[in-house]
Amino acid sequence: MKTGKDYKESLRKMKPNIYKFGELIKDVTIHPATKRTVAGHAQIFDASFKDEYKDILTTKSSISGKQVSRYLSIITSAQDMIANLHMKRLMFNLTGTCTGGRCAGFNAFNSMWATTFDMDKDLGTVYHKRIHNWLKSAQDRDITISGALTDPKGNRTKSPSNQKDPDLCLHVIEKKDNGIIVRGAKVMICGVAAANEIFIMPGSGYKEVDKDYAISFVIPRDIKNLTIVETRRPSDNRELENGFDIPVDIGGITQAYLLFEDVFIPNERVFMCGEFDYSTKAIMNFIAPYRAAIGGCVAGQGDVMVGAAVLMARANGLSEKVFREKITQMIINNETTFGMGIAAGVLGKKHPSGVWIPDQLLSNINKVHVAKLPYETKRITQDIAGGIAETGCLPSCKDINDPKYGKLLKKYLQANCSGETRAKIARLVEWLTLGAGVPGCMHGGGSPDSAKLVINAKTDINHYIKLAKRLANITEDINIEKNKK
Amino acid sequence: MKTGKDYKESLRKMKPNIYKFGELIKDVTIHPATKRTVAGHAQIFDASFKDEYKDILTTKSSISGKQVSRYLSIITSAQDMIANLHMKRLMFNLTGTCTGGRCAGFNAFNSMWATTFDMDKDLGTVYHKRIHNWLKSAQDRDITISGALTDPKGNRTKSPSNQKDPDLCLHVIEKKDNGIIVRGAKVMICGVAAANEIFIMPGSGYKEVDKDYAISFVIPRDIKNLTIVETRRPSDNRELENGFDIPVDIGGITQAYLLFEDVFIPNERVFMCGEFDYSTKAIMNFIAPYRAAIGGCVAGQGDVMVGAAVLMARANGLSEKVFREKITQMIINNETTFGMGIAAGVLGKKHPSGVWIPDQLLSNINKVHVAKLPYETKRITQDIAGGIAETGCLPSCKDINDPKYGKLLKKYLQANCSGETRAKIARLVEWLTLGAGVPGCMHGGGSPDSAKLVINAKTDINHYIKLAKRLANITEDINIEKNKK
Amino acid sequence: MKTGKDYKESLRKMKPNIYKFGELIKDVTIHPATKRTVAGHAQIFDASFKDEYKDILTTKSSISGKQVSRYLSIITSAQDMIANLHMKRLMFNLTGTCTGGRCAGFNAFNSMWATTFDMDKDLGTVYHKRIHNWLKSAQDRDITISGALTDPKGNRTKSPSNQKDPDLCLHVIEKKDNGIIVRGAKVMICGVAAANEIFIMPGSGYKEVDKDYAISFVIPRDIKNLTIVETRRPSDNRELENGFDIPVDIGGITQAYLLFEDVFIPNERVFMCGEFDYSTKAIMNFIAPYRAAIGGCVAGQGDVMVGAAVLMARANGLSEKVFREKITQMIINNETTFGMGIAAGVLGKKHPSGVWIPDQLLSNINKVHVAKLPYETKRITQDIAGGIAETGCLPSCKDINDPKYGKLLKKYLQANCSGETRAKIARLVEWLTLGAGVPGCMHGGGSPDSAKLVINAKTDINHYIKLAKRLANITEDINIEKNKK
Amino acid sequence: MKTGKDYKESLRKMKPNIYKFGELIKDVTIHPATKRTVAGHAQIFDASFKDEYKDILTTKSSISGKQVSRYLSIITSAQDMIANLHMKRLMFNLTGTCTGGRCAGFNAFNSMWATTFDMDKDLGTVYHKRIHNWLKSAQDRDITISGALTDPKGNRTKSPSNQKDPDLCLHVIEKKDNGIIVRGAKVMICGVAAANEIFIMPGSGYKEVDKDYAISFVIPRDIKNLTIVETRRPSDNRELENGFDIPVDIGGITQAYLLFEDVFIPNERVFMCGEFDYSTKAIMNFIAPYRAAIGGCVAGQGDVMVGAAVLMARANGLSEKVFREKITQMIINNETTFGMGIAAGVLGKKHPSGVWIPDQLLSNINKVHVAKLPYETKRITQDIAGGIAETGCLPSCKDINDPKYGKLLKKYLQANCSGETRAKIARLVEWLTLGAGVPGCMHGGGSPDSAKLVINAKTDINHYIKLAKRLANITEDINIEKNKK
Repeated sequence: MKTGKDYKESLRKMKPNIYKFGELIKDVTIHPATKRTVAGHAQIFDASFKDEYKDILTTKSSISGKQVSRYLSIITSAQDMIANLHMKRLMFNLTGTCTGGRCAGFNAFNSMWATTFDMDKDLGTVYHKRIHNWLKSAQDRDITISGALTDPKGNRTKSPSNQKDPDLCLHVIEKKDNGIIVRGAKVMICGVAAANEIFIMPGSGYKEVDKDYAISFVIPRDIKNLTIVETRRPSDNRELENGFDIPVDIGGITQAYLLFEDVFIPNERVFMCGEFDYSTKAIMNFIAPYRAAIGGCVAGQGDVMVGAAVLMARANGLSEKVFREKITQMIINNETTFGMGIAAGVLGKKHPSGVWIPDQLLSNINKVHVAKLPYETKRITQDIAGGIAETGCLPSCKDINDPKYGKLLKKYLQANCSGETRAKIARLVEWLTLGAGVPGCMHGGGSPDSAKLVINAKTDINHYIKLAKRLANITEDINIEKNKK
Repeated sequence: MKTGKDYKESLRKMKPNIYKFGELIKDVTIHPATKRTVAGHAQIFDASFKDEYKDILTTKSSISGKQVSRYLSIITSAQDMIANLHMKRLMFNLTGTCTGGRCAGFNAFNSMWATTFDMDKDLGTVYHKRIHNWLKSAQDRDITISGALTDPKGNRTKSPSNQKDPDLCLHVIEKKDNGIIVRGAKVMICGVAAANEIFIMPGSGYKEVDKDYAISFVIPRDIKNLTIVETRRPSDNRELENGFDIPVDIGGITQAYLLFEDVFIPNERVFMCGEFDYSTKAIMNFIAPYRAAIGGCVAGQGDVMVGAAVLMARANGLSEKVFREKITQMIINNETTFGMGIAAGVLGKKHPSGVWIPDQLLSNINKVHVAKLPYETKRITQDIAGGIAETGCLPSCKDINDPKYGKLLKKYLQANCSGETRAKIARLVEWLTLGAGVPGCMHGGGSPDSAKLVINAKTDINHYIKLAKRLANITEDINIEKNKK
Repeated sequence: MKTGKDYKESLRKMKPNIYKFGELIKDVTIHPATKRTVAGHAQIFDASFKDEYKDILTTKSSISGKQVSRYLSIITSAQDMIANLHMKRLMFNLTGTCTGGRCAGFNAFNSMWATTFDMDKDLGTVYHKRIHNWLKSAQDRDITISGALTDPKGNRTKSPSNQKDPDLCLHVIEKKDNGIIVRGAKVMICGVAAANEIFIMPGSGYKEVDKDYAISFVIPRDIKNLTIVETRRPSDNRELENGFDIPVDIGGITQAYLLFEDVFIPNERVFMCGEFDYSTKAIMNFIAPYRAAIGGCVAGQGDVMVGAAVLMARANGLSEKVFREKITQMIINNETTFGMGIAAGVLGKKHPSGVWIPDQLLSNINKVHVAKLPYETKRITQDIAGGIAETGCLPSCKDINDPKYGKLLKKYLQANCSGETRAKIARLVEWLTLGAGVPGCMHGGGSPDSAKLVINAKTDINHYIKLAKRLANITEDINIEKNKK
Repeated sequence: MKTGKDYKESLRKMKPNIYKFGELIKDVTIHPATKRTVAGHAQIFDASFKDEYKDILTTKSSISGKQVSRYLSIITSAQDMIANLHMKRLMFNLTGTCTGGRCAGFNAFNSMWATTFDMDKDLGTVYHKRIHNWLKSAQDRDITISGALTDPKGNRTKSPSNQKDPDLCLHVIEKKDNGIIVRGAKVMICGVAAANEIFIMPGSGYKEVDKDYAISFVIPRDIKNLTIVETRRPSDNRELENGFDIPVDIGGITQAYLLFEDVFIPNERVFMCGEFDYSTKAIMNFIAPYRAAIGGCVAGQGDVMVGAAVLMARANGLSEKVFREKITQMIINNETTFGMGIAAGVLGKKHPSGVWIPDQLLSNINKVHVAKLPYETKRITQDIAGGIAETGCLPSCKDINDPKYGKLLKKYLQANCSGETRAKIARLVEWLTLGAGVPGCMHGGGSPDSAKLVINAKTDINHYIKLAKRLANITEDINIEKNKK
């Protein structure tokens, strides 16, 4: 298994195809726009060698029997899902933010592991064999794989084939003997700069007319005819500066737009091509583990917010006891998304392919919590931390070190610690609550509204009605006709 | 194993010692104040024979290897805790309310199973052997065991031995060769009228000076010198009437005051007597499974509320789609307390005695949710149901059937169903949200504030601080001195 | 102006036509089902003579210039609305619950004062003159007037004329020279037992086909062919007992079904008859002051809940400081509904008839708060008060005074006060949060969903869009077509 | 009265003493770090000439009788407070953010108008005459006045004179015949770059030993020995770029640190110097109008968020009807802080000096709402807007216009409008919810915890207890002794 150093080396060997601010990023491991997310991902590798983290971050391959990164494993049991949640919480603890170049990819190939199994069984395709071979190689190479789901989509009320522009969802434009050619884009893709390969998922809800859009495959990040543009984050220019205004060097998050200008994918890396009936299943297999495990992510960042808030309080001269009720609420929020993820995992079922699929109802309920509770945690963090950390109330690191007036700023920033330490804590709070450390827990992995649709689909109103009627001894049938006024 | 009929027979054979409204209840199975809770408990017995419920309600005894009621089993694994949550949810589904004559007893002997094990090991006592023998017999007899924790306590800021009246917590007043004599009371004890025996737990936090209060034992409900007074519930007089104003016949809840006027307990039924150091441990062993599993209880009642609310909407002529957002919220609330209970169970640990102890942090967080979310669910139920079911807006069953004007009331109560059916549904909603079906999920098993104390005790602020300092590269120590202004 | 004694005398003179539990109530001032609400209303009269309350409860008549009960006045200014809110808060403070026999009537004639003014102006009717004469007489006679809005309605998705039964909304069945004959019912009408007259409002949203349903008039409560059936409330049988299980003697709430079996209304008491276009306006004029002022009501009951919760805490031996955060939240909830009512009043406008109409947007927003915040306040009250007051955990007053075991119960109920006092406080909390003191703040004056419809109707999305476009310098038009998939 | 152009001219005439990123800002009206806040403040001047805004933004001076900016007026009535709330909401509507260079100053001199009146009356000082003269001149000159309250404070549990460094609160270091010399700092001061003068308030809670800290005065922004350092805001470097990544040109917010290195203040501009007893009064007079009116501010920004969210939904092809429930909640949040501010204003009292002081209880409750509701509104805005606007999911303006791949980005950003328009809307949402448009509503004008202290101080628990005892007929006194365990 690779060290962090080996991992960075593997990134450096790739062909540059990532841009930001109109500039080609030559080396993602040192460019200020990408080096923090790479450093965060590198922590996974190095932590895997530590005794305290080993069992969380690695596991025995169900393919080869060898110890591999958990991010490269098939989730085969409730225990694997529990470990998955611990892993995500740990990585947020260690990086302060998302190591998104791994988890969507991890979910994606697990989803397609199950989906290809079904397709092969139902349709006689050979996709499962292909993904098996690819995953074995991926484990051997110990690579980092990001996952790409979101199409540009265009007008949300229209299907892909009904859009003004046929490219608004990624699609096959040509099938060759040895592979396919695709055109379109995937957008808002997390952690691409830290990845060796990118696993592409189809969208969902496709009908026959949209069958060219039902595609899944995996590519090297630096494949020919793929252009990647990094998005901007709040305060991202600060990454180009020196000093502590971006307070964290060992973690960071990126999102990118992937522009496919007729990219060729060889057959052995294609896992769906036209089987539109399976696109929704693939997505359902994806969201179950994703929306369960994201509860570990936000709990892990919430842990850091508790620490940052208490640290700020102490820096201000106040004991955390003053804020006891608020801190308890933060802890409740953290453990609720974590616990619900555990429960979703535990109440899951094994798919015939061997993949463990968490309970959809609880996973999707957790997604709704994840779109709400961390926002309260952030607000409480700002509440405890005071005006200095809330927003826009602290001079820049450059000003704090200014030869003319920096000394005065430090003098006035001191409280129950030095002015510089207090400023660093304030920047950490800002980074966690308003800055570059903020991951997209609202819409990442789909919107809370889409989760509510699943919740409704997975609950049977008639079951509840029967319980009520039995209890109150009600026998009359009550139907709702389509009334007209 | 007993049938519901056998169970009722066993209750009828006991000596009457339960009073309400100044009257001695001769037969708890037919007296209107107690027959509904007995009917609810009887459902457990009958459902245990049904294929669909068998695995939930019964399990293999870890003592005898025989199939026994789960309520008489030792919880030995995460799977047992999951089954426990399913059992409680099921029983609320089937009775609409609490079958409290079993669950506190179930938790109590599990707690004392572990606590006696520790005492015997540490102190050389023989309590564990005693409880083993008693439980074996209890399984053989297939009895119903309620549990009693709460002492009257008097002034909450004073310890038992410091109260004006020494009896405000239950205590030993004499030790004999063959047993002990106790005086005092246990109050607000659930389901006693439906029980064959009562398992007594000590209070917590006792010091050496309070050692006479550190007692645990089990008694037949009709033991000599024990007087039981049932409390009143909202609208309990309606139970004395005919008709549907108490809409549920097959479930009910009772709470009682147990008055111990120098009751003799033989040694073989005494499991703690003076070992004050173990009283807090006993309580901690009790609350972990209790506060985890109560999430199943309120989810089970919440299921019925979803059904009742939708039924009322349909009776009013409205599709549940109108209330989609609200119903989704009810489902989220239900599954959150259920899921958190599952997670607390799963993340637990095995005690050397063989008892599985759920995770204290998650159990206690669930208690906080249980003291909040069901209240929102009730409010939404009333919101959907409309004024008729909210409070005090429906004539009595007697008036609805009045020979003079009953026909008119029925005429005006009709909507998308008959007036009588609509009235029954409204009564069900009232019963669930304001009436006799309301269990004490706020303070049952301890208050939410006590749960917050455990949450704080189980979380280490310094852990969070370390995470934050590492991330922002902060090395300065920040201590809070005892400042003076 | 009448004293409380005079007021009761006026009720005693009326013909009995109110039933409950199949029994005719001969004297509402002494019958246990009605005497508490009468006592509550009598407090209004007696308090009006006290210096501290005089300015709140009385005002100068805009008709006669004489000092009259505020409940008989026309609301002519923002100051009148503020006084209205203070009055409602005061009456909840003094009675613990709703004096609903006055406020709906007060709102009803104010609404129809404006609506008749418009009808006369637009249509040449003489309704305004009639209501003027009637109100002058009502002020002279210092009568109590309840208001009746809610029709049985039947299937909610059908209009009155489209129901299976034409009587499901109150309607004219015959017009005579000197008056009209009406048939149908009004349901869930508050405080009728405490009223001398009942003011009838039309429903809303009526079209031409429903014009016979567009009626408004005022009747003596004991008018011929009117049968009144009182509904039941939680724990209402306790009112028939002695002792403190209904803890409040000086306040109470009732709701009734009014059954109109061809009741004749003389013309001078008819204020709308067929003018369907004005039915919605009448309702809008009603809900604006009602939904503003109800914020005072729930604040007034919330004040009592703060007191009861703190009293219970102290009885348990605990200082209220332990619950500081919770009490602050209760106060915030109380003052929010009160403050929003004040704001709605202040931002209102004067109608040409002289009536002050509060701001619809803020009034209806307050209705949404009123359907939510008091429920949190109740929950917190139970949280602070502990298990004894939550639900069903206290023996009956009869048992507490039982000759055999009552002494023991009192002994064990004592804490930081006598057992009896502690029991009384617990009953007060139960009465306020689960019992007969609970007014219908969810659906009283219409449902929160109906309030949301008004909120949406009163806000212009395009206004907000324009603000956003101007700021971001966006000029492109973005329209939503009716898309097809 | 000045035009926007005149106003900018007045700023340009001042001596540069403001720094950011180590650089002296020569002209605040064109420097990218300050020009947006200046543009926002300039809108006040220009809007004052428009008929639709004139009555909101200007009023008759109670000193001269001339029409002046409302920001330069004494608040003398409830109507003035209502107009104040309308003004703040309007300015947020027009600028999208805070015009903080005016409102703290406005509150500050109103507070000191009352406080100096009391001091002169009680102590025979001449402060009120001085402030009268200064305000008259300020009105004549139509200047912009920011207000400065917050001292660096150091360790929060120590008083100013007890800090390690005596300068951690601003204090007098020398009194001269013609004035005083002050040293220290004021921090996190809003809108200084847009102001002509700065009004300094004392801190609160000062004792005799801290009397040198009890000072109030007003200074030109460019006074000698004053150095101003602007703080950084989220994404503030974008202000230095071209394009729409900062989407708003006509509004902006700044906060600054004011460093007083022995600044001389002539006597006629000193309004408190040593009268420590009046420092708390001054602050109370400040927070009442401030915490009432801030409800208008956040409502005004909330209005823009409604518009931006709906615009984004439409851009995505979705009707706002899909999000009806969420938009209604946003409107409720907006109107609640607005309405509570109105109510606080209306329930206020006139101070003998002529200043209208809003109700402290409601003002401080509104502060608690302001620290909570806008955060929910932001979350909902992100929820509706989708991933593109949530955080870090949109390429930079520079990339969108890149010659190589910009065309592709625009192609994939298009939906129900052009890609560029959609990107602009997304940036507006980001700016409002995570960016430079975010004002400090949590701690601006003091923390929500400090507001809760005032809420508690302004409510009398015994009043509530009396109501409860009277109702339940409880006569026993229940006192809490200082118990010992």
